Amino acid sequence: MSPAASAVPASLEHWVLTITCPDQPGIVHALSGAIVEAAGNITESQQFSSETSGTFFMRLQIESSSGREVFEAALAPVVERYGMDWTIDTVGRPVRTLVLVSKAAHCLNDLLFRQRAGQLPVEVPLVMGNHPDLAELASFYGVPFESAPVTDAEQKADFERRVLAAIDEHDIELVVLARYMQILSPELCAALEGRAINIHHSFLPGFKGANPYKQAHGRGVKLIGATAHFVTADLDEGPIIEQNVVRVDHSRSARELVAIGQDEESRTLAQAVKWFAEQRVLLDGARTVIFR
Amino acid sequence: MSPAASAVPASLEHWVLTITCPDQPGIVHALSGAIVEAAGNITESQQFSSETSGTFFMRLQIESSSGREVFEAALAPVVERYGMDWTIDTVGRPVRTLVLVSKAAHCLNDLLFRQRAGQLPVEVPLVMGNHPDLAELASFYGVPFESAPVTDAEQKADFERRVLAAIDEHDIELVVLARYMQILSPELCAALEGRAINIHHSFLPGFKGANPYKQAHGRGVKLIGATAHFVTADLDEGPIIEQNVVRVDHSRSARELVAIGQDEESRTLAQAVKWFAEQRVLLDGARTVIFR
Amino acid sequence: MSPAASAVPASLEHWVLTITCPDQPGIVHALSGAIVEAAGNITESQQFSSETSGTFFMRLQIESSSGREVFEAALAPVVERYGMDWTIDTVGRPVRTLVLVSKAAHCLNDLLFRQRAGQLPVEVPLVMGNHPDLAELASFYGVPFESAPVTDAEQKADFERRVLAAIDEHDIELVVLARYMQILSPELCAALEGRAINIHHSFLPGFKGANPYKQAHGRGVKLIGATAHFVTADLDEGPIIEQNVVRVDHSRSARELVAIGQDEESRTLAQAVKWFAEQRVLLDGARTVIFR
Amino acid sequence: MSPAASAVPASLEHWVLTITCPDQPGIVHALSGAIVEAAGNITESQQFSSETSGTFFMRLQIESSSGREVFEAALAPVVERYGMDWTIDTVGRPVRTLVLVSKAAHCLNDLLFRQRAGQLPVEVPLVMGNHPDLAELASFYGVPFESAPVTDAEQKADFERRVLAAIDEHDIELVVLARYMQILSPELCAALEGRAINIHHSFLPGFKGANPYKQAHGRGVKLIGATAHFVTADLDEGPIIEQNVVRVDHSRSARELVAIGQDEESRTLAQAVKWFAEQRVLLDGARTVIFR
Repeated sequence: MSPAASAVPASLEHWVLTITCPDQPGIVHALSGAIVEAAGNITESQQFSSETSGTFFMRLQIESSSGREVFEAALAPVVERYGMDWTIDTVGRPVRTLVLVSKAAHCLNDLLFRQRAGQLPVEVPLVMGNHPDLAELASFYGVPFESAPVTDAEQKADFERRVLAAIDEHDIELVVLARYMQILSPELCAALEGRAINIHHSFLPGFKGANPYKQAHGRGVKLIGATAHFVTADLDEGPIIEQNVVRVDHSRSARELVAIGQDEESRTLAQAVKWFAEQRVLLDGARTVIFR
Repeated sequence: MSPAASAVPASLEHWVLTITCPDQPGIVHALSGAIVEAAGNITESQQFSSETSGTFFMRLQIESSSGREVFEAALAPVVERYGMDWTIDTVGRPVRTLVLVSKAAHCLNDLLFRQRAGQLPVEVPLVMGNHPDLAELASFYGVPFESAPVTDAEQKADFERRVLAAIDEHDIELVVLARYMQILSPELCAALEGRAINIHHSFLPGFKGANPYKQAHGRGVKLIGATAHFVTADLDEGPIIEQNVVRVDHSRSARELVAIGQDEESRTLAQAVKWFAEQRVLLDGARTVIFR
Repeated sequence: MSPAASAVPASLEHWVLTITCPDQPGIVHALSGAIVEAAGNITESQQFSSETSGTFFMRLQIESSSGREVFEAALAPVVERYGMDWTIDTVGRPVRTLVLVSKAAHCLNDLLFRQRAGQLPVEVPLVMGNHPDLAELASFYGVPFESAPVTDAEQKADFERRVLAAIDEHDIELVVLARYMQILSPELCAALEGRAINIHHSFLPGFKGANPYKQAHGRGVKLIGATAHFVTADLDEGPIIEQNVVRVDHSRSARELVAIGQDEESRTLAQAVKWFAEQRVLLDGARTVIFR
Repeated sequence: MSPAASAVPASLEHWVLTITCPDQPGIVHALSGAIVEAAGNITESQQFSSETSGTFFMRLQIESSSGREVFEAALAPVVERYGMDWTIDTVGRPVRTLVLVSKAAHCLNDLLFRQRAGQLPVEVPLVMGNHPDLAELASFYGVPFESAPVTDAEQKADFERRVLAAIDEHDIELVVLARYMQILSPELCAALEGRAINIHHSFLPGFKGANPYKQAHGRGVKLIGATAHFVTADLDEGPIIEQNVVRVDHSRSARELVAIGQDEESRTLAQAVKWFAEQRVLLDGARTVIFR
């Protein structure tokens, strides 16, 4: 630190650092050494060594008065040496998020309410729907809304082109399918790999496909649930981020199960989005590592 | 009540009555009339009209100083008129239960401990295993134990014959598969329909078949669970009685999931057995009605 | 019923009937007789005999083509004979509800969203606040909003007079304190007895009074919760309607506990309001009977 | 290491290291440096900086072929420099545990079953009771059992002297009060500070003192729970380690609440004992840090 800098206390920055690399001894020491070198103090640290994949995962929060360049310079040789995939970001920076919807309002309402309440570090420059029903809700929260029907292959291709264009235009980092009831094309799934989250209205790997609540009713299950997962071309098979269940009994009709399940859908999706936005979700093959 | 009867207060009997019949108006009035006629007082009452099957279900607890014959006589015309399937029993009577086991002790330990503690209205005249490992545990609880290996088709047929013989000999009302790791033959499943409960070590309809915890680990689920269900020839597809889940995370190995799941297996099975023994479980096609 | 009406099948009415009376034999038979007499069919029935108070509670749903007068006439002698407190209402009729708020939006947002989504059988003719902050939210849902500051005794008396006037003017049946942060006067508590529900941001009887999340943090609890209860003059001691908890750990600050707890507050309050509006909440002294 | 030994790969040791010290930058780097020096590889790592106390907590699991002395020598200067309280132990080493009981069997049964099943890294050289009821259960698990009545002050002082003597004789590291229904003297509480765990049959800070289930019933709570906490002279006020709840309703008698609550007591106590034995419980003033 230069004498000038030490004269007035520099304001502290808070960084979040994520690391993925092949597991081997010495990683923590090398990383923490780089952080000390950059005058950083570790305030949160979580790590995981995956036995199945041999991969090491780490998430750090660091406070420091050094600038980002100082940090990146100190980390560069460590990253190089251990072959790390890494990200560095400011703690709490709102993640630019595109939300796709159909007619059901509960997930969108929940996401936008939490965002406004300061509980969800995202910003939502756009909501896109294949139905116009949720325009008014988006408008209440001051979020632009676009809709276009998706009733045939051509319209679907159009809609997906607009999604990709919007991602580009708004520098979208996360796409949230908030009960968007269309199946994405394999191409779009591939393009969004690792940055699109879907809420499935069932406890996966339970009832897949259409109408899981009706299936749950027919099977007489005693718990119903919701699963937030990354979107992959394999429908309902993407890496699971969060799941919740709620108890039901024989007296609930399939229609009531839908209403009961919506609470779990909203909170499960919101939790997954929050963790993603806080850089707490890392991929370990078909599984997720969640640093809560 | 006759003058003679009123001179000495008759001891009260407590009956549990279950009814299943096609739904139609007037059932409750007719039933409650018969109960009044038999000088009974309803202390617990639950009912359910299944929209899917058009069936009416009812469970009543009744206190009365009348004898069983008086009761049955009063109920006979109602039962006849409405085409009722019905059972009548003494509240709290221990249900004669045969437990089948393999090597895993946790479910048997839990069942026998609760039975001795007075929390489970069953009596267990026999535990049968395809391994001898749990003989000592059964012995501690004073329960006879038999085992025989089941490693080929002939041994399996032998074992199942002994099961049927034991059911006959001990007037068994309920068979509990407490982590019995053999698949029952379709014939035995059919013979035990509606009176055999299995504990499946997964949240059905999740991971069926062998090694569900390994499957759960591979899929990275965030909740694991257990399902108690009636045994049917359709493996893992019998009517569900109870389910529980517990939260896990990425850091748990498949082996740890097994240990964590065992708690859920024990409590889920014990709950299902308790409800069955208290006549709280009625069948509505592929679903169960549970009058908790 | 007019001759013309009898020519075409009358439309079915659905009634909900609640009964509270001293427990004694014969009640169910007498009631079901009256229902048969009025050509009613019982579609849901729940009952409870309280051992502590000797009181019998019952809730029935009945479908019938008879009019309300026919029903009331049939029930009158039974009600008289058994000394019943009773209510009869149309199933699903929206209950006129006044919501009181301060600055926190999450409970109001949740209630109004569910109401609009058809999940909560209430109508809200007015929201009143001691702060103006939630005017816009109420307006989005088309609900009139009034606010007035409550910073001294006189303003408080004024506000409470306006509450009573609004109750009168809008025929209010239920008052919901949706994180209304003022203590009601004993007089208002008395006036609202049995028809005002508060959400307490703690698992009662845990941390009472101000700042329960701070208390929870200081004590290092592993679960935090919320309690919906009837308002009584004894602060935080009214009959409990519903409670929920959520797991937390040492790493959560008191401020984070607040955010985490808000989800439980919203869902717990909404559940209590739903049960109240569906006539599922009956009072048994200091306890509630909930016919879910 | 002898030349012969170096020819064949040395067997890996697994260590668990816990650290508590004033928080400051550089701790992780210094520690990880010492571990690298001792040829250790970090396989699990959790840390927490307490804002309320300014204390830094860390738990590490390390695999290494170095011996304990090498480790301790490498760590010594770091420990000195940062003023660390620390422990080092072998992963999975059974913790010597004394269990105190009265008449209720469920917690003891659960602990001993889990211990035998390999799920609880403890060894239990002795169970002591103020009643003889559980002698047979202890005997089944091959654990010595002593009992002596505690019905007056003198007997109590005698019993506590025997407890202290047994702690001494068996090198006891943990005392578990498994529904031991006597209040420990302040002197014994002080002597056992930080190494005695009690299971309280209520969701603290809910119903303290005697008969919490009766209190819970009278208050009509909708959830009942159990709390495992460190024993302190302040009855029921010791640092909380784990809590669980289960849903109940109005229909449960106080006696039924007792039975329902016992499941939560058993699992909550077992969880707390497991975490303690795995060195996952650290004290932060009146709170605990749990590195799950």
